[in-house]
Amino acid sequence: MARDADKTREKLLLAATAEFAAHGEAGARIDRISERAGVNKRMIYAYFGNKEQLFAAVKEHSLGRLLEAVPITPDDLPGYAGRLFDYLMDHPERHRLALWRTLEPSPPTEAEERSTAEKLRVLSAAREHDEALSPVALLVFIMAIVQAWPSTYGALARPTFADAAAQRATVVEAVRRLTTP
Amino acid sequence: MARDADKTREKLLLAATAEFAAHGEAGARIDRISERAGVNKRMIYAYFGNKEQLFAAVKEHSLGRLLEAVPITPDDLPGYAGRLFDYLMDHPERHRLALWRTLEPSPPTEAEERSTAEKLRVLSAAREHDEALSPVALLVFIMAIVQAWPSTYGALARPTFADAAAQRATVVEAVRRLTTP
Repeated sequence: MARDADKTREKLLLAATAEFAAHGEAGARIDRISERAGVNKRMIYAYFGNKEQLFAAVKEHSLGRLLEAVPITPDDLPGYAGRLFDYLMDHPERHRLALWRTLEPSPPTEAEERSTAEKLRVLSAAREHDEALSPVALLVFIMAIVQAWPSTYGALARPTFADAAAQRATVVEAVRRLTTP
Repeated sequence: MARDADKTREKLLLAATAEFAAHGEAGARIDRISERAGVNKRMIYAYFGNKEQLFAAVKEHSLGRLLEAVPITPDDLPGYAGRLFDYLMDHPERHRLALWRTLEPSPPTEAEERSTAEKLRVLSAAREHDEALSPVALLVFIMAIVQAWPSTYGALARPTFADAAAQRATVVEAVRRLTTP
């Protein structure tokens, strides 16, 4: 029974992730999540509470999967950036959630607070010699470079989506330069 | 009369820019633009055509203002990045339009095509010696670094909005490193 409940929870989280990635927090509809997951709407409220709480669960779940797949490697930040880029290519919903969250600010979850604090801690230890870019700045710019190609739009979006392998190489090189004072 | 028409057009473009920045292309409402500008809805259709054409006019107008305020300086790319950062701080709607356009892809306008081609041309001329990062990659990463701080969300958004002057200095330094092979 517990296993069935876990499966239902996971199915709902995946359907909810797709819905929030497609429509953002304000635009997401519990009805569509219910339909997509094939799970009764009342079950969603029973499992997660209201839409805001469901979105918090989606944030935690999405971050958990990312951290498991791509742990930070402070001694190899260019490699870390390359692996994050691969992850975003395989999980475009993660990138869309990031874009939505900039447009529709919402509080970080506890897991996000912990994860950011931990990344800053290992970066501080590894980057003591870098006086011009703080750990926060480095983290912000690494994330920006990793998301740069999938964030192109307009005239730049055309040539740039041609070749993910070539894009990946530029991400690694850009973070190598960024981390070379 | 021609001057009145220009004023009305400008008023409508500013109201439309605010509306598209707030709600994206799909969510924008001509009604609200009409209300915000204090101009009859039929006038909007008469000036611009349908919503898609109005959005194209907003893109051209927004880009035109940006290019006028911050021309590219290929011999001083860190300075260019700093000035772009200042512009985005003063014009948050420009950054929101960029986020929306990644979420809701739409074709580039002719002015965007021309502007991108021109930027790539001057970058190619100035950066012949840079073999690892092409002009396209450089432009994509400069844009990403300039938008990095206003794109933070969750746990990173808190400490990072504290001090625009300190953020600006990191943007300039990051682009200095990016452009140093």
